[in-house]
Amino acid sequence: CPALAQDAPTGGASIYGVLDQYVGSLRRSDQPGRTRVLNSGGMTTSFWGMRGTEDLGGGLRAFFALESFIQADSGTFGRTSADPYFSRNSYVGLGGAYGQLSLGRQTNALYAATGNFNPFLASANLSPVMLQVWNTGYNRAVLGDSVWDNTIQYTSPEMAGFRVSAAYGLGEVADRPGRHNLNLTVNYANGPFAAVISAQQVKVGPGLAAPIASQKAQMAGLSYDFSLVKVYGQYFQTDTPDTRTRTRTAQFGAAVPVGAGRVMASVARTQRDTPLADASRTTAALGYDHYLSKRTDLYAVYLSDRLTGYARRGSLALGVRHRF
Amino acid sequence: CPALAQDAPTGGASIYGVLDQYVGSLRRSDQPGRTRVLNSGGMTTSFWGMRGTEDLGGGLRAFFALESFIQADSGTFGRTSADPYFSRNSYVGLGGAYGQLSLGRQTNALYAATGNFNPFLASANLSPVMLQVWNTGYNRAVLGDSVWDNTIQYTSPEMAGFRVSAAYGLGEVADRPGRHNLNLTVNYANGPFAAVISAQQVKVGPGLAAPIASQKAQMAGLSYDFSLVKVYGQYFQTDTPDTRTRTRTAQFGAAVPVGAGRVMASVARTQRDTPLADASRTTAALGYDHYLSKRTDLYAVYLSDRLTGYARRGSLALGVRHRF
Amino acid sequence: CPALAQDAPTGGASIYGVLDQYVGSLRRSDQPGRTRVLNSGGMTTSFWGMRGTEDLGGGLRAFFALESFIQADSGTFGRTSADPYFSRNSYVGLGGAYGQLSLGRQTNALYAATGNFNPFLASANLSPVMLQVWNTGYNRAVLGDSVWDNTIQYTSPEMAGFRVSAAYGLGEVADRPGRHNLNLTVNYANGPFAAVISAQQVKVGPGLAAPIASQKAQMAGLSYDFSLVKVYGQYFQTDTPDTRTRTRTAQFGAAVPVGAGRVMASVARTQRDTPLADASRTTAALGYDHYLSKRTDLYAVYLSDRLTGYARRGSLALGVRHRF
Repeated sequence: CPALAQDAPTGGASIYGVLDQYVGSLRRSDQPGRTRVLNSGGMTTSFWGMRGTEDLGGGLRAFFALESFIQADSGTFGRTSADPYFSRNSYVGLGGAYGQLSLGRQTNALYAATGNFNPFLASANLSPVMLQVWNTGYNRAVLGDSVWDNTIQYTSPEMAGFRVSAAYGLGEVADRPGRHNLNLTVNYANGPFAAVISAQQVKVGPGLAAPIASQKAQMAGLSYDFSLVKVYGQYFQTDTPDTRTRTRTAQFGAAVPVGAGRVMASVARTQRDTPLADASRTTAALGYDHYLSKRTDLYAVYLSDRLTGYARRGSLALGVRHRF
Repeated sequence: CPALAQDAPTGGASIYGVLDQYVGSLRRSDQPGRTRVLNSGGMTTSFWGMRGTEDLGGGLRAFFALESFIQADSGTFGRTSADPYFSRNSYVGLGGAYGQLSLGRQTNALYAATGNFNPFLASANLSPVMLQVWNTGYNRAVLGDSVWDNTIQYTSPEMAGFRVSAAYGLGEVADRPGRHNLNLTVNYANGPFAAVISAQQVKVGPGLAAPIASQKAQMAGLSYDFSLVKVYGQYFQTDTPDTRTRTRTAQFGAAVPVGAGRVMASVARTQRDTPLADASRTTAALGYDHYLSKRTDLYAVYLSDRLTGYARRGSLALGVRHRF
Repeated sequence: CPALAQDAPTGGASIYGVLDQYVGSLRRSDQPGRTRVLNSGGMTTSFWGMRGTEDLGGGLRAFFALESFIQADSGTFGRTSADPYFSRNSYVGLGGAYGQLSLGRQTNALYAATGNFNPFLASANLSPVMLQVWNTGYNRAVLGDSVWDNTIQYTSPEMAGFRVSAAYGLGEVADRPGRHNLNLTVNYANGPFAAVISAQQVKVGPGLAAPIASQKAQMAGLSYDFSLVKVYGQYFQTDTPDTRTRTRTAQFGAAVPVGAGRVMASVARTQRDTPLADASRTTAALGYDHYLSKRTDLYAVYLSDRLTGYARRGSLALGVRHRF
């Protein structure tokens, strides 16, 4: 057998993922026409992955994850053609009593926080705040990818409800060790209350090409679960000095459990100040997510979007999501 | 751990596939030379996949499949470089007493019917009718892909031997909702007898670029298993109005069980009428498929091909197929 | 369900792989600058794969492997963008008392021998001899890929410690059946002693474009495990007639078990003779590999490199490797 002996495995990977597809009639405020689609990733960006954990004894463990986003409507890997294969995550690490250290391509903590503190969660296509802050079509506020390459990430253990993570993404440019990305995030959770603050400086990634050398972004979010309703709030600010651009984004949302599902409502507004022209965008969504089981749900979302200088346009999506 | 909580899986995927490789000496009638090859996909186009089913209770189930064709002789994904990663299938759906509805990239029912009603089954490289109707090198009769993107497919339950499927593939062109693909297929099975009729109109996919806006295709097939021999017959007609092209393809075949294997013979003939020049192609194959187990077989196939204006040429393939 | 009945699987694949990432400060002798990196594949080139074996009875078995190299620091498949998806291996075969025959894309036996007979094993980035013989950045001595496409490989059973393998890689050029790769390798193992000789002629693959039509390469290696220390030696010679280039590479190395790890040292020197200018390169490495478990280890390696006409430069790598 051609495989080298040193690579002999002893098991330890599980397969998992999410397939999410929806039919929709879509039109962004600044789009010239309306498109009828069958698209992937209404509530969760479809992906498949492998992961595993090994108990090393003495409280130490090794872990890894390889996760590949899928445009499941066409079977294409990645979110766009610019993505690598394991675009969602590709890391290995060690964890123990003092926290965990992981190396590789890893989900950005500011991106994760955006998803965790709005009622549509990580919906990259139907959550107003996810669209305004991270979607290129919506002139995303934050530069750099939502997953960072070449990154060393430390995550602390939970201490009195607090969990701290720090990420350092190397730029790998010869003789330019200062060209890197940094993120510091603090999460807090205490019963029904949760909060996050996240700050980062990016110098590497999408949108970071001349003349733009860097961007700073800060974000705060909180949620409170009143049982009958869970409320969410977020505030983002980004500063891109090379284009003298500042963005400020606010999001308010609520989710109400209804039978085997929940009704979700969220509105996000981004104010973009540039030397040439200021603009503001308001995006709102109202949706219902119905769980057929813990793994499979059906959803309907109406999305409204208006950008300065364009008419308000609406989109509708009806979909199914299945976890495996 | 960077993964978002909402994506936590609970298991439910299995890995499977087919690896099929053959050594061959190949020459199509219209090829200038002969090539000695080690190729992938003699009897089944090699692929790997993941799939799962979840029982939702009350007779309802969720299901998904992600399947990736492989050119296993070189380890390349897809059948050609034009293919996406999960080129064979990428869908999710729900099924119950009233049939099943699936969304995504899905095998075309006319393609499946071509494979089911000839003795070489879905062999994309050695079945005469598969070559003439679906292979670009053989100037395929049917336009559009053999797997459709952005497709909603309904498949009925079996009713008195009949099973109906309807597929609607969205073109996703802004303000052009009428640009889509449609397929309607009826399968019938009753003891040793099986039959199919399939009709479709395609406006999206390979071969459908200006000046060609659409193509209509119809097909009928039947098979009868006399135990000592199983016979197959098929007839296809396609009409491409923008090039005033009509093709008519007929196939006759038989398979005879011999010990742990079966002898297969099939001949297909396509008549192509165009305003410029008519042409006909006759391709025939004789093969033996020997099963070492239910999962592993060895095969030998001789293929003969003749196109109007060219000499008759022969190809030989010897291969192994393994299911996992 | 759209899948064809003949492809129904019955199980038989397992998932496995290696994730290896390191932080490093890298500079090759002929590089203008130093780069700080988080890279993949310090000790083992990261990959994931599927494989399986089926017992066919009577001592016969079927087997397959599909293995995909990963640049795990960015989640990209392949070692470079030139690689196919299953770049590490993609084969199916049959084995029995008379040896095994496999078809597809397969690891080159000369490459495997390079890895088996130096203390850093198959480390493509930190083993001096692997770098000099196989790494493009180090002006690799051997042409053709380290994994061969379209290859028929026979491996004998072990006979009195000897195991012979022969590989024939088809070029698949029309009317040019003589354009192919050939390799013949003999491995010997007897208690603490192991040896290999490998010879090949390549006409297809990377580096084999006009004016270079072919290259011959020979290699001999041996190792002896004295328990307190294991020593390794290798010698390579390549001849590329079309550029009148000859390379000669020698490697000496030793590995010493220390507690749960081992200290590794290796030096390789390549002399390259061409009509224009001769050059020699000396690369040496000293490392320590510490096993946290059979599956997970930490390593530190210092690499020194000097090429004729350039200064000696050093690189340092600290990494973690996890098998799954």
